[in-house]
Amino acid sequence: MRVFNFSAGPAVLPEAVLRQAAAEMLDWHGSGMSVMEMSHRGKEFISIADKAEADLRALLAIPANYKVLFLQGGAIAENAIVPMNLLRGRTVADYVHTGEWSKKSIKEAGKYCTVNIAASAEDRDFTYVPARETWKLTRDAAYVHVCTNETIGGVEYQWTPDVGDAPLVADVSSHILSRVIDVSKFGVMYGGAQKNMGPAGLTLVIVRDDLLDRALPITPSAFHWQEQAAADSMLNTPATYAIYIAGLVFEWLLAQGGLAAIERKNIAKAKLLYDCLDQSGFYVHKVRKEDRSRMNVVFRLPDEALDKLFLQGADARGMVQLKGHRAVGGIRASIYNAMPIEGVQALADYMHEFEKQHG
Amino acid sequence: MRVFNFSAGPAVLPEAVLRQAAAEMLDWHGSGMSVMEMSHRGKEFISIADKAEADLRALLAIPANYKVLFLQGGAIAENAIVPMNLLRGRTVADYVHTGEWSKKSIKEAGKYCTVNIAASAEDRDFTYVPARETWKLTRDAAYVHVCTNETIGGVEYQWTPDVGDAPLVADVSSHILSRVIDVSKFGVMYGGAQKNMGPAGLTLVIVRDDLLDRALPITPSAFHWQEQAAADSMLNTPATYAIYIAGLVFEWLLAQGGLAAIERKNIAKAKLLYDCLDQSGFYVHKVRKEDRSRMNVVFRLPDEALDKLFLQGADARGMVQLKGHRAVGGIRASIYNAMPIEGVQALADYMHEFEKQHG
Repeated sequence: MRVFNFSAGPAVLPEAVLRQAAAEMLDWHGSGMSVMEMSHRGKEFISIADKAEADLRALLAIPANYKVLFLQGGAIAENAIVPMNLLRGRTVADYVHTGEWSKKSIKEAGKYCTVNIAASAEDRDFTYVPARETWKLTRDAAYVHVCTNETIGGVEYQWTPDVGDAPLVADVSSHILSRVIDVSKFGVMYGGAQKNMGPAGLTLVIVRDDLLDRALPITPSAFHWQEQAAADSMLNTPATYAIYIAGLVFEWLLAQGGLAAIERKNIAKAKLLYDCLDQSGFYVHKVRKEDRSRMNVVFRLPDEALDKLFLQGADARGMVQLKGHRAVGGIRASIYNAMPIEGVQALADYMHEFEKQHG
Repeated sequence: MRVFNFSAGPAVLPEAVLRQAAAEMLDWHGSGMSVMEMSHRGKEFISIADKAEADLRALLAIPANYKVLFLQGGAIAENAIVPMNLLRGRTVADYVHTGEWSKKSIKEAGKYCTVNIAASAEDRDFTYVPARETWKLTRDAAYVHVCTNETIGGVEYQWTPDVGDAPLVADVSSHILSRVIDVSKFGVMYGGAQKNMGPAGLTLVIVRDDLLDRALPITPSAFHWQEQAAADSMLNTPATYAIYIAGLVFEWLLAQGGLAAIERKNIAKAKLLYDCLDQSGFYVHKVRKEDRSRMNVVFRLPDEALDKLFLQGADARGMVQLKGHRAVGGIRASIYNAMPIEGVQALADYMHEFEKQHG
């Protein structure tokens, strides 16, 4: 029996995708091979990769002057790869600090350049996104970096910052494909696949093509955006099976009506949980209302000792992986695209019930 | 119907592994989740990763003072990551040049240090491994790098070089787990999984623990061996599904009798093809006898115009992905662990038949 899986990532995938993957495991489309067994340079896999890119471009309406790269290493690797690829001739980059993931990006960038913290939400325990007016940007910064959804803190940008001439670089790992977004406002978007796209091990980079000539000489070829763009992400062997699964997810998203339709569903799903929190005198939720993440709903019980009981009860009802990140504790419900509203409703019902019993 | 798949990588996997993966796709061991959907920090996935490592350690008899890392990026990424992790306080590394993969490693290392070509087989078109006596090693080199199986040229070390005090670093991508090997003679072994271990996107690094303190400050955290060793390869989200599949492959190898048994089979498989080449006055094979790869059998037809006909005939008989690498042309039969001897026999039969017709 399938459970409702609230993992922050690797996370729930559409059941239809998993069924198709299982059915095609030994013989993809009469090829006599599993997708895992195909040469990445063969016509079968090339067709899979091409379709995945085309569908992703359709979903996000990616402009023609942006390259789509399917790389490896996840967002934490990309935290180093971003500065390596953008720092030629520059020494400073601006970072907006909104929580744990920003913090990791900042630490990593410090290996390659001077990091200017343009704004920080540390003053209120990372429960909000600092208003654009408060950001102190550096003249001649190589780029401005933001994390548009903080998976651990549950804070999400509901707007896209205008940062002038410097390229806006965004770690979009945990909310890409969950909402309509204007790619043309970004210089670079990157993210690990394991939340809304597919299996861990695949990293998506969407980069405006005028930014491809800024890499430092120390950039490894496998992570050199210009070289990878020229090689259609096949300078090295890509994570072929993960690209295949992501492609199936993209097909599923298109069949759901695309990002506008998915966004409506995600708004409805998030509302179920935030309404529950707002009506409660029991659960503690500190994120500022206008910055609440639709993907990661983070809250606490009034007494930490109740956490275990809450999680056990959820488990018994087939709702798993609700434990908050070890950096912050508490409870976290990640409700990505593939989480059906029935799962979210079940959690809301359980939260009401638990509050009645223990409140 | 399954084909005989001679791809050099991503490559054929054991059918039993694919069947199990398909059967467990929607619900792993009653967890209600696909392995793809599991948090890498949850007890289910930790048990999968721990078993994969334990089985790999058993297969290779890895000594306790070696760390096993499951990383990302493949061997081409590791070509940069190796020098980053080993160059602290040193400026030179020795490389032995035996073909296309050595060449890539050398080019990449040049970004971080002075590369000394200790020996090269270029004088005879990379058809042999230069004898150890001819290697000109540098005093105080950070390490000595070899590629122990050249997938493209079909050249394999049948011996492990003694290089004195400098750590021996080997790209073992395309023959690891195909034969018994003494890990203790190496400082570092690394390889992409997509030949003998599992899906592309997983990179194995086996590193002696006294080498973990030599990283340059520019090493990205995701590829910093010491940090990854301290985090059990979970400093970032690893390629979880690929680790799971590799774990199933390790189980399958143990069930086959381990590496000694697999090596006997691989010797028999390679003999079928090399006997065919040796008896032929038609096929052209230039690799020195004692350096022939058991994994990648590379040969040419007397006339390039016959290549297409040969490949079409093979295809019609259910033998696919036999085309040589675009860097060298001709024909390449990769016969990794998961290729059954029946497939190799079918190819040998077809080669005899084709020679009779066109010789």
